Amino acid sequence: MQHFSNTTIASWERFYRANFINSITGFKSASLIGTVNTKGQTNLAIFSSIVHLGSDPALIGFINRPVQAAPHTIANIQSTGNYTLNHIHPSFLELAHQTSAKYPEEVSEFDELGLTPEFLDASPAPFVKESKVKFALTLEEIIPIKLNNTFLVIGQLQHVQLEENILLPDGFLELTQASSICSNGIDAYYATQLIDRYEYAKPGVSPKKLVK
Amino acid sequence: MQHFSNTTIASWERFYRANFINSITGFKSASLIGTVNTKGQTNLAIFSSIVHLGSDPALIGFINRPVQAAPHTIANIQSTGNYTLNHIHPSFLELAHQTSAKYPEEVSEFDELGLTPEFLDASPAPFVKESKVKFALTLEEIIPIKLNNTFLVIGQLQHVQLEENILLPDGFLELTQASSICSNGIDAYYATQLIDRYEYAKPGVSPKKLVK
Repeated sequence: MQHFSNTTIASWERFYRANFINSITGFKSASLIGTVNTKGQTNLAIFSSIVHLGSDPALIGFINRPVQAAPHTIANIQSTGNYTLNHIHPSFLELAHQTSAKYPEEVSEFDELGLTPEFLDASPAPFVKESKVKFALTLEEIIPIKLNNTFLVIGQLQHVQLEENILLPDGFLELTQASSICSNGIDAYYATQLIDRYEYAKPGVSPKKLVK
Repeated sequence: MQHFSNTTIASWERFYRANFINSITGFKSASLIGTVNTKGQTNLAIFSSIVHLGSDPALIGFINRPVQAAPHTIANIQSTGNYTLNHIHPSFLELAHQTSAKYPEEVSEFDELGLTPEFLDASPAPFVKESKVKFALTLEEIIPIKLNNTFLVIGQLQHVQLEENILLPDGFLELTQASSICSNGIDAYYATQLIDRYEYAKPGVSPKKLVK
């Protein structure tokens, strides 16, 4: 085993440390967040710190970096109250990663990169037409995290759009079937393979694989 | 495409809805959190809503459900200020899932399930000996999320233990090499395959694959 203390880690070069700390927390969702400002200018950006907060009501959170580092998405969500989350698939993975470039506010990543904004009655914010799993949220609360000037942005699920054959009979979404990618660190993307699903765990009962 | 509105989703049976909402946010980390109470009683529980918050200082968050649903881990963290996060691998995946059963406070999931508590100078909280990627945290802040009585628990990284051959020359951890699992929904676990890593994105420059 290799051991690293916090003083060792703090002494590392900035990008080495960022790679290390960003990958140690494990695999994560990466999705594109679509927004529009009050002038109708669309924005699209990749976010990887997306968390499930609760099912009833359906609340989903994401972490927004300090405003000076990532200003447009959070500003648009604050001013309009609406945003979309769009899963990423290998067919447009390079373009999705490229949305992390610091484009000026007046540039729409949709136009710049050739992804298609899709406006549906379900939301004033644009969806990504190329995405097979996507949903619209309305802003509930932005909680400032004072420790490092980031924000937990919490939205309530309003409307879901799914390609056929992803939703299983028990409500579960088979995201490997959808080829939704998974991410790690600041720049790595993964495909997934189901190992198993297990039954609801109870004390004294051995875990059973779900028979599907 | 299939469409589902929030009123449709709210009308669904509880477990169907939970499967749906828990899986729509995409793939996520699942790790075991190890704690100890002030009497020396160890506790181990699986958590899947783990988020990277920042690299300098290294801050990592996780969502704890309402206290009545998940009382022991958060109580131990509050009383001792220490906890460990331990990646899960296929060799003990069933046992890791089984930690989600509601064992009484006086039962240690380590003893009950046969996972090995590992006490290192780095932390008063137990690590999982069987885990290849693990780290100790000290509590920084617990932020209550009033919308649904959950909590964002924020810790600072103190000490990392890694099996050999996982850390790459640029600081990135190759978690597929470590066979760290990835999760989705409330009961599904996945293996991963690297698609690609990309260079830091800049406006006007096409995304390039990282040559490793």
